[in-house]
Amino acid sequence: MPNKQRFLKTPIEPFRVEPNLSAEDVLARMERISFQGRNLATAYRVWQKMLESGATIFLGMAGALSAGGLRLVVAHLIEHRYVDCFVSTGANLYHDLHEIRGRRHFVGSPVENDGALQDARIDRVYDTYADEEEFCENDEWIAQFATTLECRPYTTREFLYRLGEHLWREYQQDGILTAAYRANVPIFCPAIADSSLGMGLSQARHERPGSGQVDVIGDIIESANIVIRRPQTASIVLGGGTPKNFINQASVQAEFFDDRVGGHRFALQIVTDVPQYGGASGSTLDEAKSWGKIATDAEQVTVHADATIAMPLLVSALASSCDERLRTRQRPTFDASGRVLVVDGRPLPDARYEERS
Amino acid sequence: MPNKQRFLKTPIEPFRVEPNLSAEDVLARMERISFQGRNLATAYRVWQKMLESGATIFLGMAGALSAGGLRLVVAHLIEHRYVDCFVSTGANLYHDLHEIRGRRHFVGSPVENDGALQDARIDRVYDTYADEEEFCENDEWIAQFATTLECRPYTTREFLYRLGEHLWREYQQDGILTAAYRANVPIFCPAIADSSLGMGLSQARHERPGSGQVDVIGDIIESANIVIRRPQTASIVLGGGTPKNFINQASVQAEFFDDRVGGHRFALQIVTDVPQYGGASGSTLDEAKSWGKIATDAEQVTVHADATIAMPLLVSALASSCDERLRTRQRPTFDASGRVLVVDGRPLPDARYEERS
Amino acid sequence: MPNKQRFLKTPIEPFRVEPNLSAEDVLARMERISFQGRNLATAYRVWQKMLESGATIFLGMAGALSAGGLRLVVAHLIEHRYVDCFVSTGANLYHDLHEIRGRRHFVGSPVENDGALQDARIDRVYDTYADEEEFCENDEWIAQFATTLECRPYTTREFLYRLGEHLWREYQQDGILTAAYRANVPIFCPAIADSSLGMGLSQARHERPGSGQVDVIGDIIESANIVIRRPQTASIVLGGGTPKNFINQASVQAEFFDDRVGGHRFALQIVTDVPQYGGASGSTLDEAKSWGKIATDAEQVTVHADATIAMPLLVSALASSCDERLRTRQRPTFDASGRVLVVDGRPLPDARYEERS
Amino acid sequence: MPNKQRFLKTPIEPFRVEPNLSAEDVLARMERISFQGRNLATAYRVWQKMLESGATIFLGMAGALSAGGLRLVVAHLIEHRYVDCFVSTGANLYHDLHEIRGRRHFVGSPVENDGALQDARIDRVYDTYADEEEFCENDEWIAQFATTLECRPYTTREFLYRLGEHLWREYQQDGILTAAYRANVPIFCPAIADSSLGMGLSQARHERPGSGQVDVIGDIIESANIVIRRPQTASIVLGGGTPKNFINQASVQAEFFDDRVGGHRFALQIVTDVPQYGGASGSTLDEAKSWGKIATDAEQVTVHADATIAMPLLVSALASSCDERLRTRQRPTFDASGRVLVVDGRPLPDARYEERS
Repeated sequence: MPNKQRFLKTPIEPFRVEPNLSAEDVLARMERISFQGRNLATAYRVWQKMLESGATIFLGMAGALSAGGLRLVVAHLIEHRYVDCFVSTGANLYHDLHEIRGRRHFVGSPVENDGALQDARIDRVYDTYADEEEFCENDEWIAQFATTLECRPYTTREFLYRLGEHLWREYQQDGILTAAYRANVPIFCPAIADSSLGMGLSQARHERPGSGQVDVIGDIIESANIVIRRPQTASIVLGGGTPKNFINQASVQAEFFDDRVGGHRFALQIVTDVPQYGGASGSTLDEAKSWGKIATDAEQVTVHADATIAMPLLVSALASSCDERLRTRQRPTFDASGRVLVVDGRPLPDARYEERS
Repeated sequence: MPNKQRFLKTPIEPFRVEPNLSAEDVLARMERISFQGRNLATAYRVWQKMLESGATIFLGMAGALSAGGLRLVVAHLIEHRYVDCFVSTGANLYHDLHEIRGRRHFVGSPVENDGALQDARIDRVYDTYADEEEFCENDEWIAQFATTLECRPYTTREFLYRLGEHLWREYQQDGILTAAYRANVPIFCPAIADSSLGMGLSQARHERPGSGQVDVIGDIIESANIVIRRPQTASIVLGGGTPKNFINQASVQAEFFDDRVGGHRFALQIVTDVPQYGGASGSTLDEAKSWGKIATDAEQVTVHADATIAMPLLVSALASSCDERLRTRQRPTFDASGRVLVVDGRPLPDARYEERS
Repeated sequence: MPNKQRFLKTPIEPFRVEPNLSAEDVLARMERISFQGRNLATAYRVWQKMLESGATIFLGMAGALSAGGLRLVVAHLIEHRYVDCFVSTGANLYHDLHEIRGRRHFVGSPVENDGALQDARIDRVYDTYADEEEFCENDEWIAQFATTLECRPYTTREFLYRLGEHLWREYQQDGILTAAYRANVPIFCPAIADSSLGMGLSQARHERPGSGQVDVIGDIIESANIVIRRPQTASIVLGGGTPKNFINQASVQAEFFDDRVGGHRFALQIVTDVPQYGGASGSTLDEAKSWGKIATDAEQVTVHADATIAMPLLVSALASSCDERLRTRQRPTFDASGRVLVVDGRPLPDARYEERS
Repeated sequence: MPNKQRFLKTPIEPFRVEPNLSAEDVLARMERISFQGRNLATAYRVWQKMLESGATIFLGMAGALSAGGLRLVVAHLIEHRYVDCFVSTGANLYHDLHEIRGRRHFVGSPVENDGALQDARIDRVYDTYADEEEFCENDEWIAQFATTLECRPYTTREFLYRLGEHLWREYQQDGILTAAYRANVPIFCPAIADSSLGMGLSQARHERPGSGQVDVIGDIIESANIVIRRPQTASIVLGGGTPKNFINQASVQAEFFDDRVGGHRFALQIVTDVPQYGGASGSTLDEAKSWGKIATDAEQVTVHADATIAMPLLVSALASSCDERLRTRQRPTFDASGRVLVVDGRPLPDARYEERS
């Protein structure tokens, strides 16, 4: 009989309830329970290790988490440089812009009569409402802003820097776009055409021929060049979608030009989708290894949970324990203000992949 | 145009990160975000109201949460009387017994080679392992204990009281069964035949004819009589399964004999299953209203989350804020030691539904 | 470099659309696509092999599939002996009884106002309605029937045989219970206490002391003895729940007394639940191997799908191709009419596990 | 008491098994069962009505359904004009190109050792494999092709037409891209930057400055102009993702310029994601009504199922019953070959929204 002891090394430690536990305490007591609770506690340790490692940390976010109340969590992560590069759906940035501009989202019900909402021109995102007229006004504001830019293609990274800058100047409000602008953290939005940001850009084009051009292929090159410049990378993904694949694709594309790359060294995803139907959103991190998106020996963890539960607990704990890690971490510096992104003081190549000298 | 203001009353308040937040702080900051995070914060408020209301609180638990590290959370809830009556699958009680008897579950991997585990006689529950030989030894221990009981049918409530008593005398260890014994909180296990507890009872019968008899129909009567005696009730369910329906069925059955009943006044469920396939585990609390399981005006909330994430946060916060509520709450008292359950000092009818005088 | 050809043997064959395909054609063309479509095609082949193998085939069904329109599919499977032994939740048998008695379920909406349904005394199961008053009348009918039985514990298998017999005599209608009675196929209902069947039995007890006794521990022994008698077994499970575990437990319990058993030789499950939260309903068949529930070398397949989609297609195809297989298969014969179940002409031991001579 | 009869009109008709049923028969017998089976039968009727209605039918596809064996189903739908306009993720088009070029995907296992796959340079998509070296060679082929195009931005619609044309000329193989080219059906790929198609374009840029430009904002304008030109539209979505929102956004954007639009008249989605976490992929069609994406009185149905099960059955049945409907339907004609799309013989405006005259 095989030695069973090799499988039975670490006993489960049941969670012990006590008054006045901190977020950090709660996560610490979840480390040796099971299922997704354990995975969330592991995510906490993996993120801490990312911060200690010198890796460039990509954060991706899909879903409607910005409208759903996590936009200032992400802004905090960007401002304090828990992460170095943000990849988002258009909607998350648009809902952030909405609140930076002083509008609000509202507590609603998932079982409201949608015909009545339509009559009242209220847009619903599950249990959250927004005023459709304010959304239309945002689109015009974005179009207006976009017509002030040069008539040339902008990578989404450059466009979003300019947008953050404009928002900060106009409103001085915290948010993802303004935090990224102020911290000089690049944001990519590969599916910008599938969002109200894209709709605003299309209205700019309608109003002023030649405006509203985005260069999403340029984004691919730039994101891979970030990896080539600093081949140690980490991936944090909330909710799958285009950000998840775009971050992984950057690593694969980079390796094509530089064999030091070898996939993300750390990977953490908080997803609600499942792998069984073959879609990328729910795919496992093991599957990502077959593609070389993630290093075979990466530290990795998947948490199957709604980010609106997992992130408040996780980031509250990180905020309590990572002060020193944030202060001393070897993170990249960016200048995201120009047509060409500057990393650690040196511009990336223009419209080309960086090749090893 | 309809007045849109009636839909846009309460703005979303994005979660603000800060160091050193307590579990309670974290939940408080989740109250006005969206999706399941908001629902978890609502669950916190609903549970507090349950404690203030004088309702008899039923807790149901399915899944493998006991092996998975939540058994001492449940023991805490029972000991401190956050809940009054516990309904469980057999497995959750069996895994509790396993640890009360000094055995352990172990941290494992969800992608282990199961053939190798089988060779080593390790049983896997997703990412958690147990020693199969220890499980077999438990079964014999249960059979041995069951042969010491009288040769008559026992409701699971009476059987589990005796089991808890025996475990406490032998081992003096905290756990669900020992906490319920010591706090005189009744436990029902309607699907005991579908568990290793039932297997142990079947081995008792094999060894000693006439032993190992359970009266699960008696459990139905007794659980409904608890509701008839005190028609104000609340339901908390972790994970669906037979406990969810059994708790609801008690209310429906009780109403059949006493029209004061009218469904649970409060309902809180933390589930991972979804309604779309028609099963009871994932069914909504609204659907339960059509059956009269839950009062039409009940305060209710469903949290779509793994209980191993939701419960540590939720119960930690309750432990910080409910001291006074627990001290002053009007809860039922039980004597669960006899063939007939005694509620608030008066025995329930024997093998009959209690009818209004 | 490792030889990649060992991984790249069988090309995907894209599904080719054509008019007038039969159910069997459709499944045949799904054999070499991917994801759950491929799994459903594999399920078709695995079931065919079960029929050729001489294995005793257990079918388990949870969820509300009987109300949901699959009761005559199951009746067909029982009548034509695609399966040999049926394990069910109480609800599925109760909803079958409801229709055998001439009542109906109704097409409804999953987003109806449940308060209005409650006022009208309509019970909702997702998108399906039933008349609550008819349900109450069923309960009384069951209670009435149960009071005509002897005042002794009945295994659910014996009770359900008697119930099927009574239904057949009274109504002569097709259904699960009547098909099982006529085909002498045993039905087990381990969680009968968690259903309206159990509620009916409890009302029998209320009306006539000593009636309404079920011996669910006896069911454990009997189900394991079926496996001991014919150690080659197969498991088909729709929807998880107590039937899934009860069928697996029979195998484990049997092996305890007879080492020829060794787990089910074939396993097929159609589930909507997922493994990530540790519950048995969603657990993988690989996990079941670690427990010895399923043979390490079993032919197995999990289909992640709603059975209301998967079963019509799957069983229609089986009905077209399995005539000869059904005619020649070596299936067990039962006499389920007595206190002791008779298998292949020989009674099982009374209240004892069968031990190898 | 309210009249219960208004809720109890249409009885459930249990599915009756019979040999030799066709796909169409199976769906017909599923019309009055419950849950997702009923929804799939409803989807069949809704699609038939779309074909009869004169609506322009958009089909969106996310997930990995092309690699997973559904690419020739989609090609069939395009060729025979069950649909008029296709919106896809980049991956689905890339995997289609892979097979048009004579490469294959392969039957694999979802539990393979991914390290071993990585060593062998095999890429895994759940249970399906592909040769990574062939993928790299595709990327170069795409890059090579893209460098032959003019150095100006192409909408994805124009680029994909050219790509389909080139593939057809080189390989004469059936597929999505070649079918769309031959049928002059426009394809949009709003998130092309998040795919290997985008990676190929980025390599074109690397090789030849000024190449590899896509104008995804132009796609927004063009897709909305298709709706403005023919305001009656229908939406069919497989799997959520960017195609789902892009098709809905076209309707919303169109309505901004033409108040005849009013949302899709028909909507059918086959999804595996759920609404509870707020993401657009799993969002309900009711939610879409609040936004005006779908008409308040639209005929709509959501099927919660893996498309690899639902589509073979659904499209086989359509192929058997829709010959006449396809022949007589009033569908739009396109010329997708130029920089400006031509609809029903009239070019759409260049870089502007069409405004009502």
